[in-house]
Amino acid sequence: MRVLDEFFSSSGRRAHQHGPQYVELWRQLRHSTTGGKLFRPRMVFTAYDGLGGVDDEAVAWVGAAFELLHTALIVHDDVIDRDFVRRGLPNISGTYRDRALAAGAPQHEAEHRGLSAAVVAGDLALFYSYRLIDRSGVTGRRRRRVLDLMDDALFASAAGELLDLDYSGAISIPTVDSILTMARLKTAVYSFEGPLMAGAVMAGASDAVVASLEDFGRELGTAYQIVDDLLGVFGDAEETGKSTTSDLREGKRTVLVAHAASTEIWREMVPLFGSPTLSDLEADGLRAKLDQSGARAYAEALLAEHVQRARNVLARAEMPEALRAGLEPVIETVLRRGR
Amino acid sequence: MRVLDEFFSSSGRRAHQHGPQYVELWRQLRHSTTGGKLFRPRMVFTAYDGLGGVDDEAVAWVGAAFELLHTALIVHDDVIDRDFVRRGLPNISGTYRDRALAAGAPQHEAEHRGLSAAVVAGDLALFYSYRLIDRSGVTGRRRRRVLDLMDDALFASAAGELLDLDYSGAISIPTVDSILTMARLKTAVYSFEGPLMAGAVMAGASDAVVASLEDFGRELGTAYQIVDDLLGVFGDAEETGKSTTSDLREGKRTVLVAHAASTEIWREMVPLFGSPTLSDLEADGLRAKLDQSGARAYAEALLAEHVQRARNVLARAEMPEALRAGLEPVIETVLRRGR
Repeated sequence: MRVLDEFFSSSGRRAHQHGPQYVELWRQLRHSTTGGKLFRPRMVFTAYDGLGGVDDEAVAWVGAAFELLHTALIVHDDVIDRDFVRRGLPNISGTYRDRALAAGAPQHEAEHRGLSAAVVAGDLALFYSYRLIDRSGVTGRRRRRVLDLMDDALFASAAGELLDLDYSGAISIPTVDSILTMARLKTAVYSFEGPLMAGAVMAGASDAVVASLEDFGRELGTAYQIVDDLLGVFGDAEETGKSTTSDLREGKRTVLVAHAASTEIWREMVPLFGSPTLSDLEADGLRAKLDQSGARAYAEALLAEHVQRARNVLARAEMPEALRAGLEPVIETVLRRGR
Repeated sequence: MRVLDEFFSSSGRRAHQHGPQYVELWRQLRHSTTGGKLFRPRMVFTAYDGLGGVDDEAVAWVGAAFELLHTALIVHDDVIDRDFVRRGLPNISGTYRDRALAAGAPQHEAEHRGLSAAVVAGDLALFYSYRLIDRSGVTGRRRRRVLDLMDDALFASAAGELLDLDYSGAISIPTVDSILTMARLKTAVYSFEGPLMAGAVMAGASDAVVASLEDFGRELGTAYQIVDDLLGVFGDAEETGKSTTSDLREGKRTVLVAHAASTEIWREMVPLFGSPTLSDLEADGLRAKLDQSGARAYAEALLAEHVQRARNVLARAEMPEALRAGLEPVIETVLRRGR
């Protein structure tokens, strides 16, 4: 993405005065930001193009801002989850941990140095995400509204991260509603609702259209979370690149698990669910019980319901045909987990 | 500080919609921000008042922004240093660690939950520090310049934190210059230079005055660091509230140590310096050797030099008498370590 390249090139040059380590940290941050699918800028552009926006330079910076916010949040989320790998490769924590190990630091120390570098890198991404809006040149009411949307996104994601911390530390299984609220706050607001609404604001859309995009984003974000939960247990590991044992081994609180926990079968699942030594065979057993409990059918019905609601939003009178045509394929992407 | 109270009250009300845990996190963040000496707002106001500023409402928000940036940086610095205490009380990490321990989590897990909550809290403080500038109502060139100053401050402090990480992980002792550069980047730019310059910009000062305040801030920030290093080893623990053993026990890279490492006596100090089991008696021995090596005299002379340079800046022709009168006492405060 051109504007992100511009931003990282100028930041890299600026970092030079403070030594090669700092240039390297910026290089790692660039790698983390531009290596993904740039889903959030695509959401911004899809809304913007579908609403006939004409200030392409400004909107590109707004898209970049949401992507940088995403980088900040995943880099710090990886710190919180003590994850050292993302998409099969070392993330920032992992890269710095591996270097400390190579330099002879003991494992625990090396891990902490990795996490520390990631705290700093995430801080930079977070600060500059907001700052990029100023680089966009947008002014007046549009600027204020886009900044408010970024504010809402960050405010929600921090709340979601905190709920996630609470849920993963608790012994009891939260309800389906609690899990979906947490996922909405932690991910959907900044990934779907915020970018779509920001694209609409930048295109000068009416308040009714902006509000409808919030509804659409919320429904689609919820659908995304359910797809993610389903694929994490019933997916094709070769296709998704994600083991179908790890969610069960980690005891991840998903829509499936929340539903199963409200049934009689749950008692049979408790001894194995979240067991760090869960084998693939034992995972097969849990998977069969999730199916048997009705959790899979429940999640699939819930998914269909949210997708239908998203489609209903697109059918509203105020939604222009071009916007509808742009957003239809996004639903398909989410169903195929193409985020 | 009124504007910080306003900001935290409205954020607390807003957090309510996302549950009591989030309200509590905001309460902890407020406590961390308003419990200190508000040194950075004081720097903003001192420059502003000394230069005849008249927009008191706007400058109050700018001062609050720098204080919130400070909160963000110390909360994340405590994560990196695995510190759970600040000013003798549990910090955010410590508060959440203690709660997790009380809820039955094992020590290591509880510590990580404490650090995780602090990552989230620091993110909020960082994001809203920049955002507060928009709350100030300042517009146009002044707004851009204040935002640039906050940008420079954050950019420098991340570089300094990274250098600090490198130095504390390395076996060799950095030079005095390296240590002072690191301290300047990590702390002085956002604590002295940035706030003083921002206050001047808000008062509509000339570029010459703003540049002189940068010089003054740099000299005073360096002096502050040297005072801190001296008091950490030779101070009166009752007066400073800080043990004079801990810097030596932690192997902290200070100006004193950097100088001593360049002398013959260092060989006698190596076996004890940074020993986690260093006794107070052994610390007395190291202290005597620091004195003997000439490190103490060197640090005191260096301190006097930077204080003199700060005074020379105040004597420059472009500095108005009121500004000089406002900043003289700040030098005294720093020498008495009243930050």
